Amino acid sequence: TPESAERTAVPGVATGLAVTGAGGDVLFVEASLADPESGASGLTLTGQLGDVMKESARIALSYLRSRGAELELPVGDLKERGVHIHVPAGAVPKDGPSAGVTMTTALASLLSGRTARSDVAMTGEVSLTGRVLPIGGVKQKLLAAHRAGITTVLIPARNEPDLDDVPAEVLDQLTVHPVSDVREVLALALEPAESRQPAGV
Amino acid sequence: TPESAERTAVPGVATGLAVTGAGGDVLFVEASLADPESGASGLTLTGQLGDVMKESARIALSYLRSRGAELELPVGDLKERGVHIHVPAGAVPKDGPSAGVTMTTALASLLSGRTARSDVAMTGEVSLTGRVLPIGGVKQKLLAAHRAGITTVLIPARNEPDLDDVPAEVLDQLTVHPVSDVREVLALALEPAESRQPAGV
Amino acid sequence: TPESAERTAVPGVATGLAVTGAGGDVLFVEASLADPESGASGLTLTGQLGDVMKESARIALSYLRSRGAELELPVGDLKERGVHIHVPAGAVPKDGPSAGVTMTTALASLLSGRTARSDVAMTGEVSLTGRVLPIGGVKQKLLAAHRAGITTVLIPARNEPDLDDVPAEVLDQLTVHPVSDVREVLALALEPAESRQPAGV
Amino acid sequence: TPESAERTAVPGVATGLAVTGAGGDVLFVEASLADPESGASGLTLTGQLGDVMKESARIALSYLRSRGAELELPVGDLKERGVHIHVPAGAVPKDGPSAGVTMTTALASLLSGRTARSDVAMTGEVSLTGRVLPIGGVKQKLLAAHRAGITTVLIPARNEPDLDDVPAEVLDQLTVHPVSDVREVLALALEPAESRQPAGV
Amino acid sequence: TPESAERTAVPGVATGLAVTGAGGDVLFVEASLADPESGASGLTLTGQLGDVMKESARIALSYLRSRGAELELPVGDLKERGVHIHVPAGAVPKDGPSAGVTMTTALASLLSGRTARSDVAMTGEVSLTGRVLPIGGVKQKLLAAHRAGITTVLIPARNEPDLDDVPAEVLDQLTVHPVSDVREVLALALEPAESRQPAGV
Amino acid sequence: TPESAERTAVPGVATGLAVTGAGGDVLFVEASLADPESGASGLTLTGQLGDVMKESARIALSYLRSRGAELELPVGDLKERGVHIHVPAGAVPKDGPSAGVTMTTALASLLSGRTARSDVAMTGEVSLTGRVLPIGGVKQKLLAAHRAGITTVLIPARNEPDLDDVPAEVLDQLTVHPVSDVREVLALALEPAESRQPAGV
Ligand SMILES: [Ca+2]
Ligand SMILES: [Ca+2]
Ligand SMILES: [Ca+2]
Ligand SMILES: [Ca+2]
Ligand SMILES: [Ca+2]
Ligand SMILES: [Ca+2]
Ligand SMILES: [Ca+2]
Ligand SMILES: [Ca+2]
Ligand SMILES: [Ca+2]
Ligand SMILES: [Ca+2]
Ligand SMILES: [Ca+2]
Ligand SMILES: [Ca+2]
Repeated sequence: TPESAERTAVPGVATGLAVTGAGGDVLFVEASLADPESGASGLTLTGQLGDVMKESARIALSYLRSRGAELELPVGDLKERGVHIHVPAGAVPKDGPSAGVTMTTALASLLSGRTARSDVAMTGEVSLTGRVLPIGGVKQKLLAAHRAGITTVLIPARNEPDLDDVPAEVLDQLTVHPVSDVREVLALALEPAESRQPAGV
Repeated sequence: TPESAERTAVPGVATGLAVTGAGGDVLFVEASLADPESGASGLTLTGQLGDVMKESARIALSYLRSRGAELELPVGDLKERGVHIHVPAGAVPKDGPSAGVTMTTALASLLSGRTARSDVAMTGEVSLTGRVLPIGGVKQKLLAAHRAGITTVLIPARNEPDLDDVPAEVLDQLTVHPVSDVREVLALALEPAESRQPAGV
Repeated sequence: TPESAERTAVPGVATGLAVTGAGGDVLFVEASLADPESGASGLTLTGQLGDVMKESARIALSYLRSRGAELELPVGDLKERGVHIHVPAGAVPKDGPSAGVTMTTALASLLSGRTARSDVAMTGEVSLTGRVLPIGGVKQKLLAAHRAGITTVLIPARNEPDLDDVPAEVLDQLTVHPVSDVREVLALALEPAESRQPAGV
Repeated sequence: TPESAERTAVPGVATGLAVTGAGGDVLFVEASLADPESGASGLTLTGQLGDVMKESARIALSYLRSRGAELELPVGDLKERGVHIHVPAGAVPKDGPSAGVTMTTALASLLSGRTARSDVAMTGEVSLTGRVLPIGGVKQKLLAAHRAGITTVLIPARNEPDLDDVPAEVLDQLTVHPVSDVREVLALALEPAESRQPAGV
Repeated sequence: TPESAERTAVPGVATGLAVTGAGGDVLFVEASLADPESGASGLTLTGQLGDVMKESARIALSYLRSRGAELELPVGDLKERGVHIHVPAGAVPKDGPSAGVTMTTALASLLSGRTARSDVAMTGEVSLTGRVLPIGGVKQKLLAAHRAGITTVLIPARNEPDLDDVPAEVLDQLTVHPVSDVREVLALALEPAESRQPAGV
Repeated sequence: TPESAERTAVPGVATGLAVTGAGGDVLFVEASLADPESGASGLTLTGQLGDVMKESARIALSYLRSRGAELELPVGDLKERGVHIHVPAGAVPKDGPSAGVTMTTALASLLSGRTARSDVAMTGEVSLTGRVLPIGGVKQKLLAAHRAGITTVLIPARNEPDLDDVPAEVLDQLTVHPVSDVREVLALALEPAESRQPAGV
């Protein structure tokens, strides 16, 4: 979609799905690393995130800190560069564990320099060992993805039965990948390393 | 205007627009960097800022910490010099994400040594990647800018439809720039580097 | 069981037992150590843990920090690598001292590289000197272990009398080990060092 | 006055004016720097100060940290010496931004070694760039200054209209300086450097 | 008693006495020092301790930090080794100053390597200079000690008059030492250095 | 008195006076410095002190950190040795600014090695520049001092008029020194340096 294409044009942004008061919605998780020259360190979380969602960010970061080398990510970048994860819109309170996969993807995109695919959205809790755990609101989230022009959606394998509730005409226009490990998410959601493009293109 | 000319006579001050109980108002975001000799570090926020507005300041700072070098800003200055962002008046509680562009501009002014243009006011949320997101209160803010003698206003591109609500006689006397990236804000709001003037002139 | 086999396929995960509103349940305690390259330090606790359960994690860590060398664990790994303990599901509040043995086992598994046995579940408070103290809900926990296909359960020695309340047909299918020192737990719950397997097998 | 003469006999003390339940009152802002041998650092604030007044102290300190060198103050003293600002009486809660000029003066007195003039009292909010912003309670504050034997009062220039409310017989006995920059305050309130006297004289 | 013999078999555990809703009870204070290799530092307090009891732990530690060398304790061990004090049971809230002597004894046992005598229990507030101050509940505490098979009890000298309330048949079977300085407590409660035994014997 | 003689037998303890629900009472402020070998640092405050009383302790410490060298106190001892101030009894909440002189005296006694005179008790707020400010409860405090066998009492000079309320027969048996600077307090309350005695004598 135009919106998600613009948002994910730079490494560090991934497209998630949320349940809101008004059904479902697309959200963008943004991650940045401070210039090592600028002296920042630690983890900054913004976007009026609730307790559970802040914990999701810490889990995503610890997952990459302990498993990143296996994934060939330059985890040394996390050492002396401040990490910031933000979820616009800034004034809207957000909570819950289901942005875990999106946070992990945004951070992995940032570290790898590979942008996220703009046609892919995702939802799922992540455990500390990288397992993708089931979440709620599959129907509303898929309807929101469809409305936003997303064509590929990643959901937890254990949520596959919930696809029965999604209208067939929507499901027909979406490619849904049930996943059980966050490594599958990264493989499906990040552009190949060789297609890396200059920011803004 | 005389007020904003005095306020923005030194680098580190930018003119924002806020919605208040009594309509709209002009506000000034002030930023300072401690003398490296004085041993300060970290970020200090004052002006009775609410949670969302404090997050806006952290986003502005992280944006410059990760993108500042591209913008040819001396981000190394952020390393061992304490940053302080203050929004007078000191006793008035303030909140919301719409000072994001103003905070980013005040910090960029401070780092670059370029003063902000005193005829320009601005409003807009900033995301961590520098996108300018829509805000509320466009009508009240433009009326306040006009009352204060401001002649140029920067608003989020996605707020352009709200200009319909602004009285034509006000709009006629304002140059309104819809912007979608904070780099446009900096280009429009900061004086050129070559016109840098001694403080107080 | 398939679930616990998948979960405990990597070092750092142990199977616990909890009392919930709906009887008992199996829970997994996950522990990770940050790559020393990534610069993390300290202890991170997630999973919406209550005060008492957070203290259990600190006791488990201090036990290993003071007694780990006697157990031939490489405690130096704790020095410059951030420790993270997480208990999914991320949005479910959890509390109480009875995950002490499970937390100690997850950390010892991580440090030793020995995976936890997937047919073993455990419950028990741990004191700072490693004593296993009695807990509540033995009946519900053993029923939950049985339902989940667990075949071996470790309980505090001082809870042995509570086995009278467990239906005989369940007890017949479980091997129950009453334990009084957490070293007995580690001996029973961790795979032998020589059977160490590559993660994911 | 005898009271303010005793209080301001040493560098680091300035005379302010406050509105209280019982009208107005004189207050003394005290600042100290720890002996570098004693190993203290950071900023300590005491006197049961409210949020806004604590922010005033941080603004005063940041102003001197960023502009102190221009004012020929030895800001390096702030590096490894703990700063403490106290406002007696210790048990009386105090709040509001109007002690900003007094806090800045007390700190500048301390750094310069120049005592504050005991016949001068002051009130005014200070912005991060050193502008003096308007405050409330001008009438009560001038009456209190007069009662206390103060002969010179510094007020924000934008509060000049409030002088209309002050009884003529009081105003006749006071020299009132409207000021708009804190540098004017320092010039008017600190004794000249050459008249520096031993403490206690 | 068997229970206290098992508990105090290792250095770092001392037997205290508490007043509970159901009369009095024996409690065990456990202390540990992290392996210097493991990189821990600071003081960790667990066991759902209230404000006053946490302060008792800090007083016990400061007493040993300032007076430990006089007592020939290796206080250098406190420098780079994390100290943890825990009071089981983990889920039971505890408060009050009367575990001061027990905390000091547990820490001194840990530092000296001398185990606590398993036939001795104690109660008393400790001041920062090591004075033993009076506490409440002498009668309930002595009854609990007697029930638990303890034969020697240390109480504050200023609580001696409370012994009148203890049944004679209980008092006959207890040796009660009134003490006024915590050094007397350590002399009476710790095994002699020469009888130091391997842990677990 | 026997009590205050025992308490003040070691440097670091001074005798104060407090107003309680039941009239007035004598209290002892205890201060300790950690052995530099033990690695402690910072300021620890215990004794269930309220906000105002904690601030008094910080003011006392800052006073000595900035003025200690003038008083020939070895302020370098404050650099790498943790300071702890405790006010028994540990479970009794205490608040108010009037222990300021007692806290300053306890710390100065500790640093100088001069014990406090056991026949002297004191009350008074201290400002950051060492001025002694007036307090409440003079009558109750002097009655309590008299009951406790104290013979010399130090009160703020500005509280002299309150002596009118003290019964003549009590006043006759007390030497009352009105003081206005904390240096007078130290001169009157500390034993001369040459009479320094071994602890416990
Ligand atoms: Ca919550
Ligand atoms: Ca993309
Ligand atoms: Ca300008
Ligand atoms: Ca809020
Ligand atoms: Ca709790
Ligand atoms: Ca396994
Ligand atoms: Ca003066
Ligand atoms: Ca407030
Ligand atoms: Ca409490
Ligand atoms: Ca023993
Ligand atoms: Ca309070
Ligand atoms: Ca003495």
